[in-house]
Amino acid sequence: MKTKDKIILASLDLFNDRGERNVTTNHIAAELNMSPGNLYYHFRNKSDIIYEIFVQYELLVDHYLQIPEDQPLTLNHLVGYLEAVFEGLWAYRFFHRDLEFLLSSDERLRKDYRAFTFRCLNAIKKILQGLQKGLDGVLVELDDEHLESMSLNVWLAVTNWMAYLKTAHAGEDDGAIDKDMLKQGIYQVLSFTVPYLTENYLKEIRTLQDKYRFQPLSEA
Amino acid sequence: MKTKDKIILASLDLFNDRGERNVTTNHIAAELNMSPGNLYYHFRNKSDIIYEIFVQYELLVDHYLQIPEDQPLTLNHLVGYLEAVFEGLWAYRFFHRDLEFLLSSDERLRKDYRAFTFRCLNAIKKILQGLQKGLDGVLVELDDEHLESMSLNVWLAVTNWMAYLKTAHAGEDDGAIDKDMLKQGIYQVLSFTVPYLTENYLKEIRTLQDKYRFQPLSEA
Repeated sequence: MKTKDKIILASLDLFNDRGERNVTTNHIAAELNMSPGNLYYHFRNKSDIIYEIFVQYELLVDHYLQIPEDQPLTLNHLVGYLEAVFEGLWAYRFFHRDLEFLLSSDERLRKDYRAFTFRCLNAIKKILQGLQKGLDGVLVELDDEHLESMSLNVWLAVTNWMAYLKTAHAGEDDGAIDKDMLKQGIYQVLSFTVPYLTENYLKEIRTLQDKYRFQPLSEA
Repeated sequence: MKTKDKIILASLDLFNDRGERNVTTNHIAAELNMSPGNLYYHFRNKSDIIYEIFVQYELLVDHYLQIPEDQPLTLNHLVGYLEAVFEGLWAYRFFHRDLEFLLSSDERLRKDYRAFTFRCLNAIKKILQGLQKGLDGVLVELDDEHLESMSLNVWLAVTNWMAYLKTAHAGEDDGAIDKDMLKQGIYQVLSFTVPYLTENYLKEIRTLQDKYRFQPLSEA
């Protein structure tokens, strides 16, 4: 593996575990038994590493959010896309944790993330449109404005889910939030579709919701 | 005005304008033409100031989210609650910007915020229940599970709206996000109700959505 890739992987691990704010390039160098000077040769500063990590994340998400045009989609397709999205959110979880700060510090990251947001919103809309297609479409026909407000609400829920889990799990070890708990956000996204399902799919959504239903966080 | 309250107000302003991360107790003291020692007399550290600010925010929100039991609510009531909520989000906007970091640094804040979250979710659910009441209820009857997943999706949208605006406005002056733009999040919340409205309210929701529709953020 190239040194650059080793640095990216190690940095991602450290950022995820300790929080980006608490990790310096010296920590990263030490983690890799590398001199700070050697690290500097590959990445001038932490911002450059973070940007490179984001570029990887973008590639990953753009890849699995390639939604076929003009093809009916099923609820299993929807769940497939959501599984992939939440896998990505988990693997790059530090990013959404400090998103505003990271974006405010780096203009190219800010521009890229903005474009990325719009691509994701478009993909969500395409998924919803795919679910409307065919003789036996999963969702009823919705007008464009409706699809767009729904897509945005889905995006807001998905990108905020991890933060919600952490604040609602207050007092417990941060490690208490694992990938499975994160994926329970899929239940929340499925609930968006419920009022728009055609009759044949009411039973299927129940089964899927049962699969992803999260344990209610107690108020204790 | 008591010195303690002056400190809270000045700190809130500075946190909102510059970001909590960039403001020290020395900055706060200087802003008030106060010696750091004098500030220390009132607040031992920044955490204590932040906690006190949150206590104020909590009181404010708990006050306007007192939802009457057993009383039918109208769409105007809903919009009234949302206007108040977004006013609060704006006035204390620094808080959600750095929420995870602030909570991770202060255990009492973490516990208080967790309880606060559940009170807010309960209030949203009560509002939805209120909208279902009466001979001419605004919303159709929904079961408990449905109401709870909807309440959570509303919470996720509302608490993430400001961050979304900032990331989608990337490249522009931070000052470009003002209170009116923030309140356009009300349009997103209204769109949650659309599939559940009873016939008499389809026209009214259109009028309200027109009022709060945000200018689509261009992809330019």
